[in-house]
Amino acid sequence: MTVPGLPIRDDLRGLEPYGAPQLDVPYALNTNENPYPPSERLVKALGEAVMDVAGTLNRYPDRDASALREDLAAFLNADTPGVGLTGRRVWAANGSNEIIQQILQVFGGPGRTAVGFEPSYSMHPIITRVSGTRWVDAFRDEDFGIDPGRAVEAVRGHRPDVVFLTSPNNPTGTALPLEAIEAVLEAAPGMVVVDEAYAEFRRGGTPSALTLLDRYPRLIVTRTMSKAFAMAGTRLGYLAASPAVIDALLLVRLPYHLSAVTQAVARTALAHGEELLGGVEALRGERDAVVAWLRGRGLAVADSDANFVLFGTFPDRRRVWEGLLARGVLIREVGPPEWLRVSVGTPEEMAAFRTALEEVLREAPRESL
Amino acid sequence: MTVPGLPIRDDLRGLEPYGAPQLDVPYALNTNENPYPPSERLVKALGEAVMDVAGTLNRYPDRDASALREDLAAFLNADTPGVGLTGRRVWAANGSNEIIQQILQVFGGPGRTAVGFEPSYSMHPIITRVSGTRWVDAFRDEDFGIDPGRAVEAVRGHRPDVVFLTSPNNPTGTALPLEAIEAVLEAAPGMVVVDEAYAEFRRGGTPSALTLLDRYPRLIVTRTMSKAFAMAGTRLGYLAASPAVIDALLLVRLPYHLSAVTQAVARTALAHGEELLGGVEALRGERDAVVAWLRGRGLAVADSDANFVLFGTFPDRRRVWEGLLARGVLIREVGPPEWLRVSVGTPEEMAAFRTALEEVLREAPRESL
Repeated sequence: MTVPGLPIRDDLRGLEPYGAPQLDVPYALNTNENPYPPSERLVKALGEAVMDVAGTLNRYPDRDASALREDLAAFLNADTPGVGLTGRRVWAANGSNEIIQQILQVFGGPGRTAVGFEPSYSMHPIITRVSGTRWVDAFRDEDFGIDPGRAVEAVRGHRPDVVFLTSPNNPTGTALPLEAIEAVLEAAPGMVVVDEAYAEFRRGGTPSALTLLDRYPRLIVTRTMSKAFAMAGTRLGYLAASPAVIDALLLVRLPYHLSAVTQAVARTALAHGEELLGGVEALRGERDAVVAWLRGRGLAVADSDANFVLFGTFPDRRRVWEGLLARGVLIREVGPPEWLRVSVGTPEEMAAFRTALEEVLREAPRESL
Repeated sequence: MTVPGLPIRDDLRGLEPYGAPQLDVPYALNTNENPYPPSERLVKALGEAVMDVAGTLNRYPDRDASALREDLAAFLNADTPGVGLTGRRVWAANGSNEIIQQILQVFGGPGRTAVGFEPSYSMHPIITRVSGTRWVDAFRDEDFGIDPGRAVEAVRGHRPDVVFLTSPNNPTGTALPLEAIEAVLEAAPGMVVVDEAYAEFRRGGTPSALTLLDRYPRLIVTRTMSKAFAMAGTRLGYLAASPAVIDALLLVRLPYHLSAVTQAVARTALAHGEELLGGVEALRGERDAVVAWLRGRGLAVADSDANFVLFGTFPDRRRVWEGLLARGVLIREVGPPEWLRVSVGTPEEMAAFRTALEEVLREAPRESL
């Protein structure tokens, strides 16, 4: 018996499971992780936080994760002054993937449509389709931006129940101006999700869609503790929205979806936010340096407000990816054809990336790659 | 703006979120938790296990949770000798609710049907509907069992893509003979899920559907660490099935759905299985005692192979529930009308339950309840 022999949904037939290869390499620059691990002090605090709740692990957790949601609201209020959020307007789940799934379960479904602008986060269309929602790609512009006029046209034409915007966008690094987001919000008949997974890395002066929440009750802004917050292993995604949106999500969330341990670990991480976010400035600097270095090599590089950089173009990008991997540097073969994405790591990791890429380019001149 | 003002799915309109009230009471006998908390030794071990992984929480977890799945297979092999499972045939998620959701996402969906036999676990129809799958209730018999002939008839009539069986069943406590499960397996055109959330509490001689796995590649047996394993706060559900079923689930599972912390905590709990399962014998004894006591009071009581007892009948069950709550004893108003469900707790908790129920029955004679 193999998968084709099982009575799976027809629209899933022939698909491959999502996921970058999990390879054991010296330099993992492929999943946009934060390279700075928790300090010994924080490791101890995390263990103690778990011991504090472990004595009652025979009991179910707080189903509404109320204390954690208050802490997340406080973090957002500090991140984007003036938004004035409370826990009532914040929701949390096991990674932003589960957040996105819950949104599609309540606002999407059979007969409904979601629109996104690709290349973008590849889980948006995957989760959309698994939820039975139709996915429409409205395409990004040549420079990976989204022209507000064209976006409005796409929204008016498809009348989607859910629109996905991303700022900064993965895998291109492109942030959106608020004008583009507002134009979509004004035109959209349904919900508008702004995925801000990489928001903390944005360059100065780039605003967050959180500032629009008060004016648009159908706006949802999603965030994660996996990237800037350096907690990918904890699986904690969250969103901010109007209280009615949170109430709607309660209709589809699996009861007790967030474990007592996850709640305790995430709250402890938030209490140590200064340490965990301490690497963000350094990562921004490394990012800008690698952008300049790649451009200095004559390569095309997308402007990045995130902790990764999309560069190219290579007629045979697989050969570059393999050449780097042979040198212990794992990056990601993702996004538009001929482009590759490298996550921003420590200075040492980026030096290894630069050395390896120089060797690959020297071995095979660019035209042949 | 309230939920009705939002563009939610039409079939979710008017629904209420699932969930028993989370009240702070002296005696919580409402969610079938195991009343025995982890020992100080285990609390320490859990904290240390988290410290061991906390230093790499900036990285994503093992997406396939391979080590945890091996440990779960080893536990099942000890629980039900002879089944010979490996990690390749086990899958884990954040609670058995997420397991059920993944099953419906891959084998259910629009245009598909799931059949269950109610009264049963109320999340089966809820998750079925959220996944866009049609739910058909084929009803239990008067004694809360499932007659094999009638079950086969229901399966032949509805030709469901997924059948849900439960053994022991929640909220009635009823275990199924293997013959009933096999009859359904022989007749079913699609997948058959046997929910064994309470299996460890079953009375001697009651077999597990795990013993049927080798012969039926479309059988899925689900389990949880929330009940006998006393780890409700950890949120760890799992299943055993053929390797092809696991491969199919990979098409819909959210990548990195199980945190590094959850994997570490669950593995530590499994390593301390002897301690955690140590309460099961006592709970079985308390269960049988409370069944006998309730029957001694002239009440109707369903035979129970689980850690809860369904009893009645009360024309006004809400009044009994409220009378108990006023005395600090929270049980569950669930299942067939006129019946109530009490979870089996410690001897002290069950004494409080008995005292409170005696008072409630004395205050208002049964006929008026």
